[in-house]
Amino acid sequence: MEISYQPIGIIHSPFTDIEDMPIQPTGASGIRGTIEVFPEFAEGLKDLEGFSHIILLYHFHRVQESKLVVTPFMDSQPHGVFATRAPKRPNPIGLSIVKLLSIEQNILHIENVDIIDGTPLLDIKPYVPEFDQHRADRVGWLEQAKGKVHSKKSNSRFR
Amino acid sequence: MEISYQPIGIIHSPFTDIEDMPIQPTGASGIRGTIEVFPEFAEGLKDLEGFSHIILLYHFHRVQESKLVVTPFMDSQPHGVFATRAPKRPNPIGLSIVKLLSIEQNILHIENVDIIDGTPLLDIKPYVPEFDQHRADRVGWLEQAKGKVHSKKSNSRFR
Repeated sequence: MEISYQPIGIIHSPFTDIEDMPIQPTGASGIRGTIEVFPEFAEGLKDLEGFSHIILLYHFHRVQESKLVVTPFMDSQPHGVFATRAPKRPNPIGLSIVKLLSIEQNILHIENVDIIDGTPLLDIKPYVPEFDQHRADRVGWLEQAKGKVHSKKSNSRFR
Repeated sequence: MEISYQPIGIIHSPFTDIEDMPIQPTGASGIRGTIEVFPEFAEGLKDLEGFSHIILLYHFHRVQESKLVVTPFMDSQPHGVFATRAPKRPNPIGLSIVKLLSIEQNILHIENVDIIDGTPLLDIKPYVPEFDQHRADRVGWLEQAKGKVHSKKSNSRFR
């Protein structure tokens, strides 16, 4: 079974190289970018400006291969790829939650962007705390590593 | 540009019909299901059991068409599809955050399932509060509607 999607837009950010990218929006605090939603999908943006945060699903277009076991940015130990947010996944779909600043026609201005410039966008969903906030009492291997997220940058391991 | 993905597994739940489904995990509290990750991807699950919650990305396989403007389950007013979590999207990718109970080899036992039985799974990501919890001060049209989420069930509008 093959599932086919088409980009609904392109994400623009200051990050043109995989090196020196923040690895999550928490490490991309204040970084601004824009989303160009293709005009044929602009009608789908109606009422989105009422939400302070949005969920972006996008295609990791710079990823050339998938791996089932990876050593993530924040650790020196290998983990199963589904226990990480690493890009080299069987289906390389990225997920970021960003702040929505404003919408002008088909252009969205966003903040806290951890996405490489030119990334194809697959979907936008409103971020709804009632759906998306959960009291997670265990975060596995990240328990030790998570303090490092803010400062850590990506490197060439994921090329 | 066409992007092709392949399912990494199948989600099993008590919901065999689109009618009577909860529309979000908050309305699916306590409902249990399983995920069958195809054996060839099982290695990618290593260390996932350390996380109490996981993010599932899946293909809304029962959706036959996309709409840019929809009247969501929780409202009587039409909204742009990207301002809703409705299934009829240009790229029908679903996102649910569920509780991970246990893993036996390639089978995941999960709770708070709002997904129809037989849904093709695209990706699993660990839920990490530091990445995924945001202080959203505006939830748009859902502000009025969100109290209704717990009890509201889906109906045939999304067939």
